[in-house]
Amino acid sequence: MAYSPLIDQLVDALRCLPGVGPKSAQRMAFHLLERDREGGFKLAQHLEQAMQGVNRCEQCRTLTEQPKCAICANTKRDHETICVVEAPSDVVALEQSGQYRGTYFVLMGKLSPIDGIGPEEIGVSHLLTRIQQQQVKEVILATNPTVEGEATAYYITAQLKALGVTVSRIAHGVPLGGELEFVDVGTLAHALEGRQVIA
Amino acid sequence: MAYSPLIDQLVDALRCLPGVGPKSAQRMAFHLLERDREGGFKLAQHLEQAMQGVNRCEQCRTLTEQPKCAICANTKRDHETICVVEAPSDVVALEQSGQYRGTYFVLMGKLSPIDGIGPEEIGVSHLLTRIQQQQVKEVILATNPTVEGEATAYYITAQLKALGVTVSRIAHGVPLGGELEFVDVGTLAHALEGRQVIA
Ligand SMILES: [Zn+2]
Ligand SMILES: [Zn+2]
Repeated sequence: MAYSPLIDQLVDALRCLPGVGPKSAQRMAFHLLERDREGGFKLAQHLEQAMQGVNRCEQCRTLTEQPKCAICANTKRDHETICVVEAPSDVVALEQSGQYRGTYFVLMGKLSPIDGIGPEEIGVSHLLTRIQQQQVKEVILATNPTVEGEATAYYITAQLKALGVTVSRIAHGVPLGGELEFVDVGTLAHALEGRQVIA
Repeated sequence: MAYSPLIDQLVDALRCLPGVGPKSAQRMAFHLLERDREGGFKLAQHLEQAMQGVNRCEQCRTLTEQPKCAICANTKRDHETICVVEAPSDVVALEQSGQYRGTYFVLMGKLSPIDGIGPEEIGVSHLLTRIQQQQVKEVILATNPTVEGEATAYYITAQLKALGVTVSRIAHGVPLGGELEFVDVGTLAHALEGRQVIA
């Protein structure tokens, strides 16, 4: 369906958002144009600023516009414990559980040879360097309990063996095949509490 | 939950989209930041352009960046028949039915005294002027079959009585309480076909 070029382009562009099909994209475009131009302008501006300004934390690789994210920059956090997760949304989920006072390392992915994602792409050498340079005592592996998440945890465990740190895996309690960010905070708190030393 | 100011602002701004709660806004922001910056930049640009450039058709009031929309500007359409709808999305739905060759008048709302929306806000005088100046023969009222949509159709019918045009109401076939834009094209085609003269 052709509206007018500017509207067509907006409907098209909205489809880059996850979960937005042609019908919802049209609803969104008309909603903004008919009822919330100010919201539309603000969204344009904040999109532009975030796409431009947000990079990765130089210590934990999560998304932030500062050189170091707020957690890495916080001297009250326990910097001797690192929790390894797949994505920034997992950091959010774990923070919401309120059970964790350590720091993070965000892989920004998981090992997936079929997609060409190897140890370098998920920053494993960066993690190893950080563990050696700082006095890290424990690494908690909180990758998702999926086949690829488990393989990633297994690979990192093998790399960490020689470094003399305690390596633990987040407790099962997170449902198998599930994704951290969709688990309720109670389950997450429980899973962290019940973590087991695996190396 | 606080990420970093630029990400917080983006998550917040995404909530101006209809049907987007805090959880989906977060997913959208992370998706763009982690995997589709180009899509994010493009969306920012097309939002800006559309919010800036899209206005209302001077003849039918629908959304367009031209003085007249493509339908009003099309001399092959039947300009002696006007279909009155509540919103631009209704034009899209009726066009998709493929049954209509006339033009439109888009109220951009419906009578709703409680919200301060009277005849002037929905452009009734503009519609009357157009009917008098052009040789309009039939006005099809295709407001939604809701209480307010029916009241709007009733009011417009009363205003049109003195003008000597045929006034018809879209056939019931559109489910009562339903909204045009969510009705399948077959039902819409049928409803147009079975319209009845009411004045
Ligand atoms: Zn960090
Ligand atoms: Zn028009």
